[in-house]
Amino acid sequence: MTLLALASMPLALPAQTSNLIATTRRSVTCVPESDFPRYDDQRCAYFRVTAPDAHKVQVAVAGIEPLELQKDSLGVWTGKSAPLPLGFHYYSLLIDGASVADPATYTYFTNHPVSAIEIEEGIEGNYYRPQPGVAKGQVRSVQYYAESTNEWRRALVYTPAEYETKRHKRYPVLYLQHGMSEDETSWTKAGLMHNIMDNLIAAKECVPMIVVMESGDINRPMLKPGDENPFAGFLTFGKSFYDVMTNDLIPMIDKTFRTKKDSDHRAMAGLSWGGRQAMEIVTSNMDKFSYIGDFSGALLLQNLKEDFGGILSRPDEFNRKIHYFFIGYGGAGDFGPSDVKALENSGIRFHAYESSGTAHEFLTWRRCLKEFLPHLFK
Amino acid sequence: MTLLALASMPLALPAQTSNLIATTRRSVTCVPESDFPRYDDQRCAYFRVTAPDAHKVQVAVAGIEPLELQKDSLGVWTGKSAPLPLGFHYYSLLIDGASVADPATYTYFTNHPVSAIEIEEGIEGNYYRPQPGVAKGQVRSVQYYAESTNEWRRALVYTPAEYETKRHKRYPVLYLQHGMSEDETSWTKAGLMHNIMDNLIAAKECVPMIVVMESGDINRPMLKPGDENPFAGFLTFGKSFYDVMTNDLIPMIDKTFRTKKDSDHRAMAGLSWGGRQAMEIVTSNMDKFSYIGDFSGALLLQNLKEDFGGILSRPDEFNRKIHYFFIGYGGAGDFGPSDVKALENSGIRFHAYESSGTAHEFLTWRRCLKEFLPHLFK
Repeated sequence: MTLLALASMPLALPAQTSNLIATTRRSVTCVPESDFPRYDDQRCAYFRVTAPDAHKVQVAVAGIEPLELQKDSLGVWTGKSAPLPLGFHYYSLLIDGASVADPATYTYFTNHPVSAIEIEEGIEGNYYRPQPGVAKGQVRSVQYYAESTNEWRRALVYTPAEYETKRHKRYPVLYLQHGMSEDETSWTKAGLMHNIMDNLIAAKECVPMIVVMESGDINRPMLKPGDENPFAGFLTFGKSFYDVMTNDLIPMIDKTFRTKKDSDHRAMAGLSWGGRQAMEIVTSNMDKFSYIGDFSGALLLQNLKEDFGGILSRPDEFNRKIHYFFIGYGGAGDFGPSDVKALENSGIRFHAYESSGTAHEFLTWRRCLKEFLPHLFK
Repeated sequence: MTLLALASMPLALPAQTSNLIATTRRSVTCVPESDFPRYDDQRCAYFRVTAPDAHKVQVAVAGIEPLELQKDSLGVWTGKSAPLPLGFHYYSLLIDGASVADPATYTYFTNHPVSAIEIEEGIEGNYYRPQPGVAKGQVRSVQYYAESTNEWRRALVYTPAEYETKRHKRYPVLYLQHGMSEDETSWTKAGLMHNIMDNLIAAKECVPMIVVMESGDINRPMLKPGDENPFAGFLTFGKSFYDVMTNDLIPMIDKTFRTKKDSDHRAMAGLSWGGRQAMEIVTSNMDKFSYIGDFSGALLLQNLKEDFGGILSRPDEFNRKIHYFFIGYGGAGDFGPSDVKALENSGIRFHAYESSGTAHEFLTWRRCLKEFLPHLFK
């Protein structure tokens, strides 16, 4: 390959978009050389795609109808969306019917690589941004062999800044799961959990802790011809992770890191399907955990005597073993409210939190994490 | 968002491709739910793209002519390439002229997210695969504020397995750079450097060391109208990184990790444009480094009295300060041979290595790293 072959560059910005650049903000998800996607004060998003020979280019974002882009004489497609919710939204391009990531942003994993746009908050979002003077922890990629599934896997492990200097101190551990189709990278790339941890620890709003993120093995299965219900058997999604968690992951973490190993110092939380996984794993292993966080989690409670082995129908036992049970959800439509209702007169001790104006996406989950952390290990 | 809305699934595999599945191998770069891209014993690659309304779908891979895919009645495009070189190859799809990543593979960063296919070696490639019984190091994501460029940046830092248990031991440091358009993730995601380090350390072929990977700030600039030479000024690409390296990155690493801080225990290497950056930084800071690795590096030597401040025309000084100078390149066409020729009778002490049958891609650079490491810090 020659230097010149490396030079297949995007076209320079047409003159007519320079005013747009001045009056709108660039998404933090953009790759360095890209000025799009952008958004304005009304939270309308602007997209720009080079596709000279395409007949139709659309953007599928945030659950609204696919946005059709318009082509100019140079083969550059642009479009403006209706106002989007605040926060972080995955999206894909549809180029003549092919669903692909936008080359203008970094990619995120939801079964396949997708793009994202973030409609940013003001200073109220500083808790998930790096702050001057705040010591930074690390996120460590750790490979290990899981006997349960006979494969090499990896965990991402957050360690607080002081872990490097307090060389004999031991720490409690939070296991933190992603949602359906995501993977172990989602909480750092989309959730910015490392910044949330650093900022809350520095402000003494939570205790220093280790946070472990692994893949919950919940890729969406492929449709087979004849499948009438694409979610047939969906309650079993991610079951293979349960043995990995208890037989392989927890032992590896306790061996590799300076952890506190007792149940009073181990918590589990997850978002969406990961919230359900957290509930399943904790209620099946009450000797190992004392805290549960359920962020927009699909608990789908129907009958407390049967769901999750019936533990939610035995409030004395549950409340004695679980020090804190958090259920959070987005106020703009989300899983959560029906589960809160099902638990209201059950005697189960829990804390419900509603994130104002956000939906089933990562701004809700950043806020849930921020609300949840101060209650752990105290 | 409802569970059902999450269910926009890829089509099931058509029956006629099941024989292909049986007779070819799936690329290790595939996302979990994808069976393509694949390759056969002749190193021909097979691609498969769902694009029902597209008029032309091509694959741009490994410097060959774009491969045209053929559409079936379901809107699925497939195609078989000519034999590809062994190794790891970035590629993009062209869907009606739009250059995008293939949703079937994980993405890699080269200015924009792109896809990759790996034509794998046999057991001779075990040195970059995780091996039973070999203790695994960690790759840590470390954020820091760089005063030189007034921004938050991050480094990826490999620490050897024993770093966790030998809590007072100090380690030498290798700074390892990516190529043009890549970033700090390239050496782990595409280079699998963590496996190479673990395996060589376990076999005592190299000493345990810390390896630091940062972005060299070498995105390709966007073409501007009127630019006759897209590489006008290319010798300055990535200059902003030089101050970051000496003023911010090295001090942060020496403060955060248990490093040996003297020049006898600091090395720098890079691939392609990163090899040039390593050469520039080391020759401008001979008091800080004692080792140079140049993997397919664009040194572009013209005049030893002028290149790199003329240091290559002063062999006594260079040889006294630099303990080991490595130049490696792919045998199937690459940067390197002209630089080796320019140095042949210079009196400069260096070791040249040619990777048999590979080109300007990551299999060459994995091999270069494997050849380079045993000579460091001994």
